[in-house]
Amino acid sequence: MFTEKILADRTQHMGSSAIREILKVLSRPGIVSLAGGMPAPDSFPMDYMEDLTQRVLREYGTDALQYGTTEGFAPLKQELQKYLKTIGVETEAEGINVVTGSQSVLDGLGKILISPGDAVAVEAPTYLGAIQALNPYGPRYVRMKTDEQGLIPDSMAEVIERHHPKMVYLIPTFQNPTGRTIPEERRRQIAEIAKRTNTLVIEDDPYGSLRFRGSFIPTIYSMAPEHVVYAGSFSKVFAPGLRVGYYIAPELISKWLVLAKQGVDLHTSSFTQALATEFLKGGFMESHIPRIIQIYKPKQETMLEAMEEHFPSNFSWSKPEGGMFIWAEGPKGLDTLQLYEEAINNNVAFVPGKYFYTEPGEGQETMRLNFTMADEDTLRAAVGRLGTAIRTVLG
Amino acid sequence: MFTEKILADRTQHMGSSAIREILKVLSRPGIVSLAGGMPAPDSFPMDYMEDLTQRVLREYGTDALQYGTTEGFAPLKQELQKYLKTIGVETEAEGINVVTGSQSVLDGLGKILISPGDAVAVEAPTYLGAIQALNPYGPRYVRMKTDEQGLIPDSMAEVIERHHPKMVYLIPTFQNPTGRTIPEERRRQIAEIAKRTNTLVIEDDPYGSLRFRGSFIPTIYSMAPEHVVYAGSFSKVFAPGLRVGYYIAPELISKWLVLAKQGVDLHTSSFTQALATEFLKGGFMESHIPRIIQIYKPKQETMLEAMEEHFPSNFSWSKPEGGMFIWAEGPKGLDTLQLYEEAINNNVAFVPGKYFYTEPGEGQETMRLNFTMADEDTLRAAVGRLGTAIRTVLG
Repeated sequence: MFTEKILADRTQHMGSSAIREILKVLSRPGIVSLAGGMPAPDSFPMDYMEDLTQRVLREYGTDALQYGTTEGFAPLKQELQKYLKTIGVETEAEGINVVTGSQSVLDGLGKILISPGDAVAVEAPTYLGAIQALNPYGPRYVRMKTDEQGLIPDSMAEVIERHHPKMVYLIPTFQNPTGRTIPEERRRQIAEIAKRTNTLVIEDDPYGSLRFRGSFIPTIYSMAPEHVVYAGSFSKVFAPGLRVGYYIAPELISKWLVLAKQGVDLHTSSFTQALATEFLKGGFMESHIPRIIQIYKPKQETMLEAMEEHFPSNFSWSKPEGGMFIWAEGPKGLDTLQLYEEAINNNVAFVPGKYFYTEPGEGQETMRLNFTMADEDTLRAAVGRLGTAIRTVLG
Repeated sequence: MFTEKILADRTQHMGSSAIREILKVLSRPGIVSLAGGMPAPDSFPMDYMEDLTQRVLREYGTDALQYGTTEGFAPLKQELQKYLKTIGVETEAEGINVVTGSQSVLDGLGKILISPGDAVAVEAPTYLGAIQALNPYGPRYVRMKTDEQGLIPDSMAEVIERHHPKMVYLIPTFQNPTGRTIPEERRRQIAEIAKRTNTLVIEDDPYGSLRFRGSFIPTIYSMAPEHVVYAGSFSKVFAPGLRVGYYIAPELISKWLVLAKQGVDLHTSSFTQALATEFLKGGFMESHIPRIIQIYKPKQETMLEAMEEHFPSNFSWSKPEGGMFIWAEGPKGLDTLQLYEEAINNNVAFVPGKYFYTEPGEGQETMRLNFTMADEDTLRAAVGRLGTAIRTVLG
C-alpha cells in the first residue's frame, strides 16, 4: 500500500479538483450544461471525414502510422505556414512546431521556464487549463487587471516592473472565460512593453477564427515575433479529438520545448497530423470555418437575447464578437457557487467564475456560460431557468 | 532576445542531445542504420487501415472527434481489459488508463513522484527514453546489476535498502537496449522484494508480444499488482504513429497520474484510441502479431548468423527470444564511439551503448543493434561492413 508520502513535493500544487467535483452532477439526466467548453458535435466535418482518411492513407501510407519527428509532420508544417500567413502570422515552416493539443505547449513552457517561485503574469480571470498545466512547476501567479477590453496594458507594465515574470499568459481574442478581445491599439502597447522589457508573452489563440461580427484584429505575435509564443489549435476549427495544436516561439524557447516534448510523448500522432494536413491542403479550413460560425452565431444571439430577457438588471455580461463563452457578473455579495446549487435544482449548470481566478476569494459574483453545445430552444429555456435561480438566490 | 537565463533550473538536466548529434549522419545517403528502434513499415496493417477508419466513423461518429475523458476512451478500456486478460494481466476496465504513447506515463510518474534528488533505480543499461522523461524532475539514478538473464534480484534488494528509490524502472521482456528477458523465477523474487519493501516497480512492456521463440513468461504485475505500474503500448504491435499506450497502476498513483495528464494534454486522441479499439474488437491483434513475428524472426536470425560470421571471437552478444534489439559487447578497451566513426565510413550505423547508461564512462565497449528496419540482404551486408569496421578499430 502506498500513501501520499510517495508523492513528489510538487504534487501538492496539483490537487484541487474542486471544479471536477462540482461538475460531476452534469451527468445527471435532465441537466442542461452551459458549463462545457466543447465544440458542437454538429460542427464536425462528418460529411468528408471518410474522404480525409482515405486521402491520408493514399497520400502518406505507412508514414501516417510510423514514428515521426518531435517537431511535427513536415507536410503539416508546410500547410500551416501557408494558412497562418492568411491570418498575418508569418514564419518559415521550420519555425512551426506541432504539439498534442495546444494545452501541451503550456506544460512545456512550465517545464522549461518555471523554477518554483518564479512569477507568471496572468489575466484575472484566466484559462483554468493554463493554471493546471503550470501548477506542477510551482509558479507564483501575479494578476494583471482587465476591463471590458481585456488586459489593461499599464497593469501589465506595472506587474512586469515589480515581479519580472518568466512569462505573460494571454488569450487576446475571445478569451476563455470572458469572451473578451483585446483591441488593436492595446495589442500594440502590449507588444511594445514586451519588447521594451524583454518579456516573453504567450499568445494562446484557439478561438481567433470563430469571429461572428466585427473585424479581424492582428495578433500580438505579428507585432513582436521575437517576444511572443503564438499557440494555435485545430480543436475549435476542425476537431479536438485529434489533439493537434501548434506553436511558433523564439528560437531558444522552441529548442527547449522540443527537447521537453521528446521526453513527454516523443511526438504527436502522425495519423491525426496527416488528417490536419489534408484538411488544410484540401481547402477545407476556409470552407469549414463559415459553417461553424453559421452554427454558433445564432446560438450566441439566442443566449444574449435570453439573458436580456431573464437576467435581473443588476447583472452585466460580455457581448463577444465570437468564441464560445459569455461572462456574466452579478451584484457584489452574490456567491455564484451558492447560485450553482440553486441552478442545478433548476436543471441548468454553468461554471462559477471563481475557478478562473488564481487568488482565493476573487470572482465570487461571476460565472461563465457556454453556448456552443445546446440547441437554441434548449439554450433559451436553460437561461430562463437560470434567471429564476438568480432571482431565488438574490431573494 | 532571450538568453539561457530565462530557463528554469530543472532545464539544465534536460540538455545533452549528444546522441541526437551523432545520429544526424543517418540521413546521409547510402548509410544503413541499425541504430533505430522503429517498427518495419511493412509490419503495419495497411491492407485493412481503410476498413478500420470506416469502422471508427460508423461506430463512434462524432465521439471519435470530440474531447474525451483524461482516463481514456471507454470502449478502448473495455477491449483492453479483455485483451490483457489473455496475457495474464487482470484488472477491471476502469483500472486501465490510456496515455499518449507509453512514454508519457514515464513523464507522469516523474512529475508526480520525483522531487529533485529522489532516487530512481534503473537497470544498467536501461531505456534512454525513460531517462529523458525523468531527467527534468531531477532524479538521482541508482543502478542495479544485470547479467544475461536481466536484472539480478539481489542487486535490486540491496539498492532498495540503501537508497529507498521512489521507483524501480524495468523492461522485463526483450529489454531495450539488451533484448534480455528476466526469467520467471527472478520475476517472482522481484515481486516479493517489491511487496516486502513496499517499493513501486514500473514494468514497461512494449515488446512482450513480439516473441519469436521460447515460452511466455508471466508479468511481474500479475505477481504483485498492488506494487507494479504495468505499461503497454500499441506502438510495436499496431502502429507507433497513433501514440496510444496504456497503464495499470495502484489506485493512489493512478489518481495523480490522471491529474497530471490533464494538465499535459487533456486526453489522448479520441480518433486514434477509436482505431485501437476497432483493432482489438475486430480480432486484428491476434491475427496481426503472428504477421509481425513472421517479418522480424528471419531478420533477427539473419543478423545473428551474420554476427557469428563477421564479428571477432572476443565479441559476445545477446540472442533474444524476441523484441527488436541485439546487444553486443566488445573486448575491454574498445570505444564504440570511436567504432561508430569507422562504421559510418563503412556506411553502417548503430547506437554506442554508453548512451544507455546513467553513469559516465560505463558501457564504452557495448552497442545496440536493431534488426527490424532493413531487409535481410541489407542486414547481412551491413553486419559484414560493421565486422570490417570492428577489425579496423581493434587493429
